[in-house]
Amino acid sequence: MGTVGVENILSTPLNRIYVPEGDVLHAIKKGDSGYLDFGEVYFSQVHTGAIKAWKRHQKMTLNLVVPYGEVHFTFVDEKGLYYSETIGDKNYVRLTVPPGLWFGFKGCSNKISLVMNASNIPHDPSESERKKTDEIKYDWSKV
Amino acid sequence: MGTVGVENILSTPLNRIYVPEGDVLHAIKKGDSGYLDFGEVYFSQVHTGAIKAWKRHQKMTLNLVVPYGEVHFTFVDEKGLYYSETIGDKNYVRLTVPPGLWFGFKGCSNKISLVMNASNIPHDPSESERKKTDEIKYDWSKV
Repeated sequence: MGTVGVENILSTPLNRIYVPEGDVLHAIKKGDSGYLDFGEVYFSQVHTGAIKAWKRHQKMTLNLVVPYGEVHFTFVDEKGLYYSETIGDKNYVRLTVPPGLWFGFKGCSNKISLVMNASNIPHDPSESERKKTDEIKYDWSKV
Repeated sequence: MGTVGVENILSTPLNRIYVPEGDVLHAIKKGDSGYLDFGEVYFSQVHTGAIKAWKRHQKMTLNLVVPYGEVHFTFVDEKGLYYSETIGDKNYVRLTVPPGLWFGFKGCSNKISLVMNASNIPHDPSESERKKTDEIKYDWSKV
């Protein structure tokens, strides 16, 4: 875990199939790049301009998709290197995030946004740690 | 498969955890009632008043969650029995649907709605069949 860096984050473009009654949006299937195992799927809403930061997992690999709205993610590794990407309506990709990276995100849509995480293990509060938003330097106001 | 009926549909209440920046919504985890195996997660948008009907799977068990909006689902079995439930914002549950049932759904929110399906097998067009909306009797106008 000591050597994981932001360069290990995977950004995978996803298909979005036009259907007149409402599009079909791919998220993740068994065997996809970044898929390890199935633990849990849950959603995290983010209000417009709201920031959820920071959290770091020891065991969980995240597979993040934004099926509604736009969310700016920032990741920080032990070397202090940053990686940011805004995903959702305009950039429909899946972010695969290995354990060991700090991450935070901000709602960047004028409506509510929805983050889906399909993780390789079920939620377990003992394998994650948190820092307050201002404990890691990042200018969220520019996002 | 011949004996599956609408009584085999499972409706499981889900947790929704209040967070000021945006709620956390449970969907499905390994070992939950209705969970069989992991094949794929995908989303289906439904526009206000739009109807997507009908489809029947031979192998896929659906685990349906509506993390945004409200969707009215109707299921029909071989005996001609119907089961309907509106799920989403006001009734946050997971519907587990065994293969062999016809299903259709309608967007019942004044905004777009989002259906998540966490299925036990990846999408495979050869294991599903379709009927046109008017090929199975159901008064969608009353929904």
